[in-house]
Amino acid sequence: MREFVLLALKGFTTPDFNLNNLPEAGRMDLVCRTVSNAFYTSKTLRKDTVLHACLNGPSRPPKTISFYGPELMGMTPDERNIGGIIKQALKKGLYAEGKVQGGVTVRKLAFEKLIKEEENVYYLHPGGRDIREASFGKNPVFVLGDFIGLPRNTEKLLDRLGAKRLSLGPVELFASHCPIIVHNELDRRQT
Amino acid sequence: MREFVLLALKGFTTPDFNLNNLPEAGRMDLVCRTVSNAFYTSKTLRKDTVLHACLNGPSRPPKTISFYGPELMGMTPDERNIGGIIKQALKKGLYAEGKVQGGVTVRKLAFEKLIKEEENVYYLHPGGRDIREASFGKNPVFVLGDFIGLPRNTEKLLDRLGAKRLSLGPVELFASHCPIIVHNELDRRQT
Repeated sequence: MREFVLLALKGFTTPDFNLNNLPEAGRMDLVCRTVSNAFYTSKTLRKDTVLHACLNGPSRPPKTISFYGPELMGMTPDERNIGGIIKQALKKGLYAEGKVQGGVTVRKLAFEKLIKEEENVYYLHPGGRDIREASFGKNPVFVLGDFIGLPRNTEKLLDRLGAKRLSLGPVELFASHCPIIVHNELDRRQT
Repeated sequence: MREFVLLALKGFTTPDFNLNNLPEAGRMDLVCRTVSNAFYTSKTLRKDTVLHACLNGPSRPPKTISFYGPELMGMTPDERNIGGIIKQALKKGLYAEGKVQGGVTVRKLAFEKLIKEEENVYYLHPGGRDIREASFGKNPVFVLGDFIGLPRNTEKLLDRLGAKRLSLGPVELFASHCPIIVHNELDRRQT
């Protein structure tokens, strides 16, 4: 399994946003594109992938919406569709936790708590080791910061947990671009 | 300069589509994500990039909408914003050609005619040479097929023009993913 954890510091945690204006919901457009790029290929959906979107914006943080490739159904790769699923998840999250639809759950779970349970964590960071030179254990977990990056305290936590820093190249990319490069590198090693 | 040419065979060529349903406009969502991924990085917009979206769907094909990095203004990376710009371009394209807004033009120009004027053309194809082993001339031009792929006749034209086939990896990606991998490879060679 390949796992991505996106920390969206401003991403809305209640469903009071308009699908016609995803950027204003704490850059929910970026969250949606990250999900899209993590799961879709030309022909199929990556069944070997899990993505956790840890939202920390207004007005009831934290919320973690998780997408599980093996069970994922009823999603299309466009931003609006994924935004609609996130909105549904946040609606459910107002009063409950658990399954939203096939392969999607919502939890009142903070990034820090989630990441402490993970092993084999890689933090995508421009100062890290080149991904092309890195070796990966089984079931690697990749941490992505959003447009703000990760707070210093969160970086320190990742250091304490032994997360390895990985660079994807000389130009700093959007979080949404990172799954494409990570998948490409792992795809190449599996053949 | 890095140039991308996307042939969207079903992409609408008139503005009679709804920004709330970009997929139904001949997969305009895919066109928008390709533009987004071609131009944006975490910090800035790639000034060294040009993208031509050659639309060939209903109801007045062909139309080519071109995005020029050096002059591009007033665009944000979300699908809806880019979809709105394409809609504006197609409105203008009903009765005229030329500039739509800073860095965006519309022309009644077919893919085949556009590509014949280009040099140093690379066609992204799963059967091509691995991009990591390829060498590039100056100002490379990368041809992307959309979800349908390129028609046989168009592939033959590219062969006649001496376009080199390039593979990005073992898994076939969406057109929208390809600029990310291409940029990453070229970024690495420039440093």
